[in-house]
Amino acid sequence: MFEVFESGASLSKKDYKARLPELRAELLHTQFALQKAGVPVLIIVAGAEGAGKGEVVNRLNSWMDTRFMETSVFTKETDEEAARPFLWRFWRKMPAAGQIGVFFGSWYTRPITRHVFGELTPAEFDARMNRIRTLEQMLVDGGMVIVKCWLHISETEQRQRFEALEKDERTQWRVSDTDWRYHNNYATFLKVSSSAIRHTDTAPAPWHILDASQERYRDIAFMETLLHQLKLALHRNGNARSVPPPTSIELPEIARPNNILDRVDLSPVIGHEDFKRQYKELILEIEYLAWQCYQKSISSVFVFEGWDAAGKGGVIRRLIPALDAKLYRVIQISAPTSIEKAHHYLWRFWQDIPAGGRVTIYDRSWYGRVLVERVEGFATLDEWSRSYHEINEFEQQLIDHGTIVNKFWLHISDEEQLRRFENRQKTPYKQHKITDEDWRNREKRPAYMEAVHDMIARTSTEYAPWHIISAENKNHARIRVLTHIRDAMQDALQRSDTKSS
Amino acid sequence: MFEVFESGASLSKKDYKARLPELRAELLHTQFALQKAGVPVLIIVAGAEGAGKGEVVNRLNSWMDTRFMETSVFTKETDEEAARPFLWRFWRKMPAAGQIGVFFGSWYTRPITRHVFGELTPAEFDARMNRIRTLEQMLVDGGMVIVKCWLHISETEQRQRFEALEKDERTQWRVSDTDWRYHNNYATFLKVSSSAIRHTDTAPAPWHILDASQERYRDIAFMETLLHQLKLALHRNGNARSVPPPTSIELPEIARPNNILDRVDLSPVIGHEDFKRQYKELILEIEYLAWQCYQKSISSVFVFEGWDAAGKGGVIRRLIPALDAKLYRVIQISAPTSIEKAHHYLWRFWQDIPAGGRVTIYDRSWYGRVLVERVEGFATLDEWSRSYHEINEFEQQLIDHGTIVNKFWLHISDEEQLRRFENRQKTPYKQHKITDEDWRNREKRPAYMEAVHDMIARTSTEYAPWHIISAENKNHARIRVLTHIRDAMQDALQRSDTKSS
Repeated sequence: MFEVFESGASLSKKDYKARLPELRAELLHTQFALQKAGVPVLIIVAGAEGAGKGEVVNRLNSWMDTRFMETSVFTKETDEEAARPFLWRFWRKMPAAGQIGVFFGSWYTRPITRHVFGELTPAEFDARMNRIRTLEQMLVDGGMVIVKCWLHISETEQRQRFEALEKDERTQWRVSDTDWRYHNNYATFLKVSSSAIRHTDTAPAPWHILDASQERYRDIAFMETLLHQLKLALHRNGNARSVPPPTSIELPEIARPNNILDRVDLSPVIGHEDFKRQYKELILEIEYLAWQCYQKSISSVFVFEGWDAAGKGGVIRRLIPALDAKLYRVIQISAPTSIEKAHHYLWRFWQDIPAGGRVTIYDRSWYGRVLVERVEGFATLDEWSRSYHEINEFEQQLIDHGTIVNKFWLHISDEEQLRRFENRQKTPYKQHKITDEDWRNREKRPAYMEAVHDMIARTSTEYAPWHIISAENKNHARIRVLTHIRDAMQDALQRSDTKSS
Repeated sequence: MFEVFESGASLSKKDYKARLPELRAELLHTQFALQKAGVPVLIIVAGAEGAGKGEVVNRLNSWMDTRFMETSVFTKETDEEAARPFLWRFWRKMPAAGQIGVFFGSWYTRPITRHVFGELTPAEFDARMNRIRTLEQMLVDGGMVIVKCWLHISETEQRQRFEALEKDERTQWRVSDTDWRYHNNYATFLKVSSSAIRHTDTAPAPWHILDASQERYRDIAFMETLLHQLKLALHRNGNARSVPPPTSIELPEIARPNNILDRVDLSPVIGHEDFKRQYKELILEIEYLAWQCYQKSISSVFVFEGWDAAGKGGVIRRLIPALDAKLYRVIQISAPTSIEKAHHYLWRFWQDIPAGGRVTIYDRSWYGRVLVERVEGFATLDEWSRSYHEINEFEQQLIDHGTIVNKFWLHISDEEQLRRFENRQKTPYKQHKITDEDWRNREKRPAYMEAVHDMIARTSTEYAPWHIISAENKNHARIRVLTHIRDAMQDALQRSDTKSS
């Protein structure tokens, strides 16, 4: 999931300077409004070593009015602290009404580190995360606003930063053995951190992950996120008065990360002969793997989402020949029926989950909640924001049960979509596939782009990953999807072998 | 905690019949209002074997309009169900908008049973409970009303019922081997059930535990609870229209269980000589135990609540001689200061929790939230109802850390309190101890009675029990408290020995 945030987002000096004065003024103004309204604010600054948490906190201290803000640094536990429940030291520093508390290091830090180094079992780690979730819910119920930011840098970036610091005699001291020890466990840290974030990315206290590879962008993104969340909170609490409402649910352009879809390489093409050869191979492999999965009762859920005309149907039709007709179902999801509307939005999806080593293929899915329902306003901001966590929880239950969950977003360019639409309209036997609604949706592409980006950022997990498929070339899309499915089945079978041996 | 509900509550035929017609009419009326408003309602009927869950469900079906109600019975999992995540079968039966779903057997049943028989580890059980909590929160967020009732009967009552059924040839078949197997594990069931209830007794979906020993009372209490919750929900959702608001936050008189305080035997007296002898003995014991606890870093929290003039101060003064001055603190809690008011209500209590084998004695405590703040309206219904769960969560953290938590309610009769008040007013050096507020509080005794009953019912746990102390005789109160403290320390030391050996 973190790869979504390695977006290479950067900001020119000019843009940075242009935004600065107004942003600072707005932040201060909002701080005063919150102070007047007596709202306590907690800002959690978390993230990788070397990502610049300290710099961000320093900036915060120089921008905000520190009469109403206190920064607490939590490093090693003192003896006094270790002798009490792990949340005690944080309670002592909790911001009061009208105050901002900045936590540099937080209740997340030690559980993550200790889990990375094997000092907490998975069950103990989960218990901590549940405790944290309950705590944050309670604080928000009590009127607090919690803004949680995670600064992310890639493994390479981290190494380069440490090396750069070490090269210079004046900054050598800043890189400790611990830093390198953490760096050497970068992959594990990523895995554990992402699990922590998934566990605690809730509606009352959502996470904001920021690309911290460029300093200017990092600082602006952090400050814009903070401003945005504070404004939203003011308006939710009816304490708005002098602060204008956010004009959009999204962050201002300047702070949006580069959209993950913009980073997809749409050029790959697979020629006809190559396709035939690879396809035949993959079908044989999947056929055998699917049969093994059936033998071992490893069920599968494959979710297909994508732009209109991106070729979801075609991919699914190419997958089916690999599956025994008794072992799979394709569920076509369209607008909910009146019965479905009378239920929780997840209800209809629960009905068809596979069992006994079978496969359910969803042609569109529960992700409609955070795509069409968000973009069209069928779900309120509160409703769809809450859904990311609800969806992760739903998929986690499938995964805990041993089910394979893989999700595919079929991506095509705006131009390619137009070409396909026009082609459909010109071809008599394809005309039924194109409707006015498709044309209307095309106009909403920017809103969908944001929604897709957020969806992938918030629901791609280690065990239920999103695969973004370049579908500009249909052959390529089909081979990529089948390859991912083959790999997922292979991995699951391997894991089950390891478990049983 | 269940003992609170063994209240011997019963209802005469006359009272039962007098209430019946109106209650049925009100329930139907409320059902129609919910149906019209499109609110889905889920009723969970849980409880001990033989407590009459089936009878209650039958009654429900004969009283309500079954066109808009469906009962689902969940017994053993089918193969189809076992092959999917454990919540699947419940999702299939989830009530739709405007419908009432009655779950006879629910997502609680199997986790409890399996934990009792060792098929789930404590960590697995906790994980299930967390999953259930998340699910219920999600359903309520989605607009559902969840009413969870637990029918309780004592071990003796259960045995007698099974025996009575077995004696009669026509009902023999109703008692199975499984029933007896469950009965033989009654104590474990109680423990696990109470843990399940504590875990999931949340503000969005609170538990209602009902004394099911008398049939008439059980049925009326169940129906009144249901009616009350449905009305509250209608008003919370702003869907009230034709249903008058509940006139009180409490259940109507007829359905209230006998108050636990009314069941306290206030007659025990300990004479002067006996007291001196026992007191000396206890002090010596506690002195030694407290020293051992200090050696082993087992800290203690002792909470004292009780009626004005019940003698909290006197008890605490008698406890202190057993404790080394370096090892204890007495925290006097009165109305919060302005700094404390600017924080979450639990904040000030977190500050003084003991560490390193020390003792903190709270003279009044966080329970003010559900006592004075509830009775005086300083906290809203939502706020104080939420607090039971928040308080349990807080104490659980102390307990998980190895801290002893014991809570004492010092109980005296209305008359005895009056006597003591008058005595204080007559005695010059005691006059400062009696204020106008004390007299005002006396008038609110009935409201406090309800609040104390609910507090004990919702926050007395195996490891953080409430002890209701008969304090009509001061010597008796002092000996009882010291005895409980001695026992608690002994138990904790024993547990720590078992753990380390």
